Amino acid sequence: MKLEFCGIIQIINGPNLNLLGTREPSIYGNDSMEDYLNSIRKSFPDLEIRYAQSNHEGDLVDLIQACGLKNIPIILNAGAYTHTSVALADAISASKAYVVEVHISNIFAREEFRHNSFISPKAVAVISGLGLFGYEAAIQYILDKSIRG
Amino acid sequence: MKLEFCGIIQIINGPNLNLLGTREPSIYGNDSMEDYLNSIRKSFPDLEIRYAQSNHEGDLVDLIQACGLKNIPIILNAGAYTHTSVALADAISASKAYVVEVHISNIFAREEFRHNSFISPKAVAVISGLGLFGYEAAIQYILDKSIRG
Amino acid sequence: MKLEFCGIIQIINGPNLNLLGTREPSIYGNDSMEDYLNSIRKSFPDLEIRYAQSNHEGDLVDLIQACGLKNIPIILNAGAYTHTSVALADAISASKAYVVEVHISNIFAREEFRHNSFISPKAVAVISGLGLFGYEAAIQYILDKSIRG
Amino acid sequence: MKLEFCGIIQIINGPNLNLLGTREPSIYGNDSMEDYLNSIRKSFPDLEIRYAQSNHEGDLVDLIQACGLKNIPIILNAGAYTHTSVALADAISASKAYVVEVHISNIFAREEFRHNSFISPKAVAVISGLGLFGYEAAIQYILDKSIRG
Amino acid sequence: MKLEFCGIIQIINGPNLNLLGTREPSIYGNDSMEDYLNSIRKSFPDLEIRYAQSNHEGDLVDLIQACGLKNIPIILNAGAYTHTSVALADAISASKAYVVEVHISNIFAREEFRHNSFISPKAVAVISGLGLFGYEAAIQYILDKSIRG
Amino acid sequence: MKLEFCGIIQIINGPNLNLLGTREPSIYGNDSMEDYLNSIRKSFPDLEIRYAQSNHEGDLVDLIQACGLKNIPIILNAGAYTHTSVALADAISASKAYVVEVHISNIFAREEFRHNSFISPKAVAVISGLGLFGYEAAIQYILDKSIRG
Amino acid sequence: MKLEFCGIIQIINGPNLNLLGTREPSIYGNDSMEDYLNSIRKSFPDLEIRYAQSNHEGDLVDLIQACGLKNIPIILNAGAYTHTSVALADAISASKAYVVEVHISNIFAREEFRHNSFISPKAVAVISGLGLFGYEAAIQYILDKSIRG
Amino acid sequence: MKLEFCGIIQIINGPNLNLLGTREPSIYGNDSMEDYLNSIRKSFPDLEIRYAQSNHEGDLVDLIQACGLKNIPIILNAGAYTHTSVALADAISASKAYVVEVHISNIFAREEFRHNSFISPKAVAVISGLGLFGYEAAIQYILDKSIRG
Amino acid sequence: MKLEFCGIIQIINGPNLNLLGTREPSIYGNDSMEDYLNSIRKSFPDLEIRYAQSNHEGDLVDLIQACGLKNIPIILNAGAYTHTSVALADAISASKAYVVEVHISNIFAREEFRHNSFISPKAVAVISGLGLFGYEAAIQYILDKSIRG
Amino acid sequence: MKLEFCGIIQIINGPNLNLLGTREPSIYGNDSMEDYLNSIRKSFPDLEIRYAQSNHEGDLVDLIQACGLKNIPIILNAGAYTHTSVALADAISASKAYVVEVHISNIFAREEFRHNSFISPKAVAVISGLGLFGYEAAIQYILDKSIRG
Amino acid sequence: MKLEFCGIIQIINGPNLNLLGTREPSIYGNDSMEDYLNSIRKSFPDLEIRYAQSNHEGDLVDLIQACGLKNIPIILNAGAYTHTSVALADAISASKAYVVEVHISNIFAREEFRHNSFISPKAVAVISGLGLFGYEAAIQYILDKSIRG
Amino acid sequence: MKLEFCGIIQIINGPNLNLLGTREPSIYGNDSMEDYLNSIRKSFPDLEIRYAQSNHEGDLVDLIQACGLKNIPIILNAGAYTHTSVALADAISASKAYVVEVHISNIFAREEFRHNSFISPKAVAVISGLGLFGYEAAIQYILDKSIRG
Repeated sequence: MKLEFCGIIQIINGPNLNLLGTREPSIYGNDSMEDYLNSIRKSFPDLEIRYAQSNHEGDLVDLIQACGLKNIPIILNAGAYTHTSVALADAISASKAYVVEVHISNIFAREEFRHNSFISPKAVAVISGLGLFGYEAAIQYILDKSIRG
Repeated sequence: MKLEFCGIIQIINGPNLNLLGTREPSIYGNDSMEDYLNSIRKSFPDLEIRYAQSNHEGDLVDLIQACGLKNIPIILNAGAYTHTSVALADAISASKAYVVEVHISNIFAREEFRHNSFISPKAVAVISGLGLFGYEAAIQYILDKSIRG
Repeated sequence: MKLEFCGIIQIINGPNLNLLGTREPSIYGNDSMEDYLNSIRKSFPDLEIRYAQSNHEGDLVDLIQACGLKNIPIILNAGAYTHTSVALADAISASKAYVVEVHISNIFAREEFRHNSFISPKAVAVISGLGLFGYEAAIQYILDKSIRG
Repeated sequence: MKLEFCGIIQIINGPNLNLLGTREPSIYGNDSMEDYLNSIRKSFPDLEIRYAQSNHEGDLVDLIQACGLKNIPIILNAGAYTHTSVALADAISASKAYVVEVHISNIFAREEFRHNSFISPKAVAVISGLGLFGYEAAIQYILDKSIRG
Repeated sequence: MKLEFCGIIQIINGPNLNLLGTREPSIYGNDSMEDYLNSIRKSFPDLEIRYAQSNHEGDLVDLIQACGLKNIPIILNAGAYTHTSVALADAISASKAYVVEVHISNIFAREEFRHNSFISPKAVAVISGLGLFGYEAAIQYILDKSIRG
Repeated sequence: MKLEFCGIIQIINGPNLNLLGTREPSIYGNDSMEDYLNSIRKSFPDLEIRYAQSNHEGDLVDLIQACGLKNIPIILNAGAYTHTSVALADAISASKAYVVEVHISNIFAREEFRHNSFISPKAVAVISGLGLFGYEAAIQYILDKSIRG
Repeated sequence: MKLEFCGIIQIINGPNLNLLGTREPSIYGNDSMEDYLNSIRKSFPDLEIRYAQSNHEGDLVDLIQACGLKNIPIILNAGAYTHTSVALADAISASKAYVVEVHISNIFAREEFRHNSFISPKAVAVISGLGLFGYEAAIQYILDKSIRG
Repeated sequence: MKLEFCGIIQIINGPNLNLLGTREPSIYGNDSMEDYLNSIRKSFPDLEIRYAQSNHEGDLVDLIQACGLKNIPIILNAGAYTHTSVALADAISASKAYVVEVHISNIFAREEFRHNSFISPKAVAVISGLGLFGYEAAIQYILDKSIRG
Repeated sequence: MKLEFCGIIQIINGPNLNLLGTREPSIYGNDSMEDYLNSIRKSFPDLEIRYAQSNHEGDLVDLIQACGLKNIPIILNAGAYTHTSVALADAISASKAYVVEVHISNIFAREEFRHNSFISPKAVAVISGLGLFGYEAAIQYILDKSIRG
Repeated sequence: MKLEFCGIIQIINGPNLNLLGTREPSIYGNDSMEDYLNSIRKSFPDLEIRYAQSNHEGDLVDLIQACGLKNIPIILNAGAYTHTSVALADAISASKAYVVEVHISNIFAREEFRHNSFISPKAVAVISGLGLFGYEAAIQYILDKSIRG
Repeated sequence: MKLEFCGIIQIINGPNLNLLGTREPSIYGNDSMEDYLNSIRKSFPDLEIRYAQSNHEGDLVDLIQACGLKNIPIILNAGAYTHTSVALADAISASKAYVVEVHISNIFAREEFRHNSFISPKAVAVISGLGLFGYEAAIQYILDKSIRG
Repeated sequence: MKLEFCGIIQIINGPNLNLLGTREPSIYGNDSMEDYLNSIRKSFPDLEIRYAQSNHEGDLVDLIQACGLKNIPIILNAGAYTHTSVALADAISASKAYVVEVHISNIFAREEFRHNSFISPKAVAVISGLGLFGYEAAIQYILDKSIRG
């Protein structure tokens, strides 16, 4: 099924992802999100790639609702809230948001409690462990879906 | 035991309930909360029925504390936080809030993870599946309790 | 969806609820069911409110089937069988009974094994902890549903 | 080992199976038990096929004991009590009843709580999902066992 | 604390215990309950020892309520309902019955599902594995309690 | 619903069932599968009854796929793979195979880990404990279904 | 089966039971074990009633072995080791000791972790909640068993 | 860390994936793997993209070992063996294979037993739900890793 | 290992701890946090003791990050978020914060769900049940660690 | 509530803590208990600080009883018995001992089975991970409690 | 009981054990199986030591059956199938094979899922962690058993 | 890695193993430990083989510590403490003892609670079910390790 696409993609990062580049580099790498955004915005010049990060679960709920209601597809890395937040999962259902879930590290090779995601059953797809490239793969998939269906 | 009652009732709705009327109508119905509030305020002209909604767990904690300390009874539909928030349950205990828990849909006929509520053991009563009428039943109960005890 | 309503409501109480008024008054209150029935029959003079109580699981199955097949809505307080009886739940499905589940005490604030109900997923709604007023709220809901849909 | 066989087979149906033919036809089919009994009694003219149904667990215990003590083989569809009744299982052991367990629908393709049967470990065999034909297969097996051993 | 004692003791046996003497003698012994009652009635000539057995959970609820309300102490062997009946446990609480739980065999040396008893937490004491002598020990304890406290 | 039937039935036996007749005769009986096949082929002269056995999970997947795609109904005794193989269950779904699951012994009266079957939820029906007669009952059912629906 | 009996009974009390009479009197009563022993030795003048108490698991293992090898029946209240000691249970098996397990309080009405006993499956019988009278009942049972079998 | 890359990528598909294009199209889509392979081989003309499918767990072990020992990166969709095979996971460790795990459907939105993967903790990354595009994303990642590190 | 110490200690209190002194005094005592802070600031005149409280999980994440990045040691009483927040635990790891976890009451003597802490495995140490003195002990430990190592 | 205090504090160390200073220094540090005792006895010259260590569970029971009955407060590091001994927990209850539980390492950052303590629910407070300073903090708390209450 | 012994011993190695000597040497050592076999064949010149390895579960089933039916004792290292294969365990029972289970590494010191073995309950004995010497110990045991019984 | 070896091996047997030869001979055989020790001392004349047995967990802790600190390798059959004692496991770690765990019977073919061993993860290797020969195999392994490494 072809995806109705408005030309905008919203990347949403959850708690502690503001520390990317400084946080646990053996797990998350050395690149900051800002540098990475610059590079992918160059690769996809025709796209409007929006970015938001928050440590507040409620902010993330607000953001998902806003995008969902406007049919803006979301690339969501909910960080730690992935494993504890029913509210985020409900926000996806409630606003009919189109969500590709991304994790930088391979969460299945980490602690047991990171293996469960409340978001995955509501997401279109899950990408875990491709590093920052995961965001790019998600963008390509959304584009592909909007063209080839 | 008769309830000391100040004439005010606070309805508190949690995350994603701002989308009532648009969100999953097969589960939550077509009525918006605003229309419904108008109608029940008319039915209970002598009552001050306050309303608040937030997607933020912390806001809900603040609200419950404020009401609890002022002895304003609360009708609480905590949405997804029902199933994950010890903080809301603690706010009820800590502020001695008088809470009737309401769910629009019958949460026991939904996903397994919605069957547990951290709030229920702290609430006076639980109403689940009466649709928006659940709020009305809660108001009547509180009135009844303040008159007949 | 409007409820086809015949003007009759059947209240069914399960095991040990014949002792209401004498049994553990700190949990169940001091009112006997008979006195309470008199009072609500006065409040709803146009309704035929039938009442039955049994300590026998099989009797309750029979009663639910009979009502279900005749489209008489049921207010069911199955007492202890709530937590152990698949047969009651099946009776609801098998006879397409319209059931509002009521508990006098808040079962979620009691022993762990009282938190599971086989009936809840088959019921339209669940009311727990409103005391005897729960039966009234259920009647009102059924009336409301038959008028407003 | 050859089965001592008295020429009588007792079919026992448990709770809600009195509604066969009207109950959830997508699961249980449209045939009533009475019609079906007529047809199998014709197919096995030399057999005395007794039939009993009850919604009462205690009645089923009585019936199983009676058959067990008289060496009448039983075809038992205990319905919902299958999943909750230790008393039925004990009745089989206590009276040394010879029991073939039958379920009309395939209980293993239904809810999780229907996957456990207290009766199965005490039964000679279990047939699940063959529809009403399951009773016939059970009769054939009993006959076969009484002839060929 | 001394027990107010009316001179009557009610023994209540649950499902399948009507088969005592014939049922699985390696577990339950060869004595019938009737012979045993005769012998203990002779040993305690000043006591009225009443006896009832039923395969129906509801009958047992009725019996416990009746005794509880009349302050007749109960020696209860609930058989299989021991492990599945919340209703019997509630009947004890609801009627404030004084119950000594007895099992003829040592239930802890049998199947896993016989290790849990809903009745034990409500009973004064539990005797398991003393054979029929368990009833006698329970009688002596009740007498002792009514004399020495 | 009537079954479209091609006149062929495929019996598939899984691991260790090549040892039938020699393997644990107290559980599986003394008859070899070959003798038994001869006898049932005589009983159903108009049917083509194919037989295959393998100790290899992959072979069984291949076989199920082949039958499923050709609409040949399958009588499947997957032996030990019953309890461990998601691949067999997927093969049934993927090829839309029509499967009646058969076990010679009553698996519910054996070790705990034999009580779960990945195949049962995908099968039309389950027969367990009828000995080799179970295959016959399955054939009759398939015939019955293709004639009477 | 009649019990070969040497005229000696060994009572063994486990950890913290040396504090009987002073320890938690609402649970264990006010009588010291010494006073109680005097009184039962008077009641059974023909018996040699030996008594031992230890807070050491190893001492209890030694004692059980010694009695088991000499065919002295044991009345064992293993206190807290009841719930944690496989070694005591093994000592019973290893020495073929004849053990009646006694608990002064009703352990099933206490904390969850007290509901499991490693000893019960190895004991002849279990008495729980009869207070100190439990020891007497155990003595009577042993005598009864040695006379009547 | 830059990936040493030989210019070859091995795609390995597990059980039932030979039916792609015909199998459950609502879950897996209508494209056959062969058509898809042609298309991606055109997109990556400088790459040697090898393809293998097997329904046999042992074949998949052999294939993973062979690639691992030759340093050929693997894109592995192990189908049902994902959830049951420790042997595949061990093959990855034992041969130091570089594996990107791909699932066509979003396994986290399907049955509970598909949420666990023995392979994920051994894989570099996991892609689930991107449809056939998942294989492409994996190829791009491997290329990216071999160039940018 | 000696702790590099900047002379500042940050106390962070989580949800509902703003009610200290009024909240459940039987559990939390009668002292307000403000009075207590005054008293400990007097006891440690050379230290800068900062204090923050919030009911918002996101605020606490922000605070922990800020301290962690500036090497300010934290005394963290996360209240109810202790038991539910992976985000706080991640904030500690992500910012390399030095955290001593404090609970006023003994959480291990309270409800089961308070026995698990996501924070404890990331904290240097855990103090539970020392009342407000726990904060003092934590300060002393940090000082001690910065002097003696 | 002020603590009645006799001027004596008993430190009790459990199994393997005799090896402190030599045992796993990365977990337990390099200081021996003897050196540490000398240093804290100097810091609290007015206190009598008694010390005992045993590898025997029974010895620890004896010690706790003795202190409990004499109202000597205990600082208890039960080592491995922390996680397995109900007998130690019972000794605290039985003798009404006043116990502060101390662990040198942070047991919550170690193996799963070290996260449960049978002692914690009976202790006044729990200190874990402060190294040997934990004993000092416990002493200060006891002093503080005896002065300020 | 003396073992009837034919002078032949079959060593069977399961999946990934063909990589011995190259695979994870820190766990499995540097010796190849071939070199090791040469050395033990020299040590036991009178024995015929057969060797087989396969990555296919079905091959291992075939091998075990063949040996079991010919009374050739087996030394079985089933590798990863140890933890997942009911079919191998059934093959042992079905063919009455005499099996000593060997693991080169100590599986109990590895991941949780390696702690369960379906084979162990069917094996005569289990040796885990003795390295390649484990095979030798198994040979000696079999010889010893065939001589001394 | 070659084992530094002092020429002494300490065999330690735990609770109830003093009864070897008399205890449950169907499980443990008819040989006494003394006879067996004589025979193996003859087989290894150059070794000093020490032997100790105790029913006391604390004694076993003492013994393990003593050997561990003196680098005497231990062959440990901890009997029932295997399944319950964290203290023994800690003693191994704390004293860096070199331990081969031995069980005479195959504990994996016995009761469920015997399948877990706290000692196994700390032991070098585990031998279970080789009868008394298991001690010999352990000695050979230690010798082998001290010579060949």
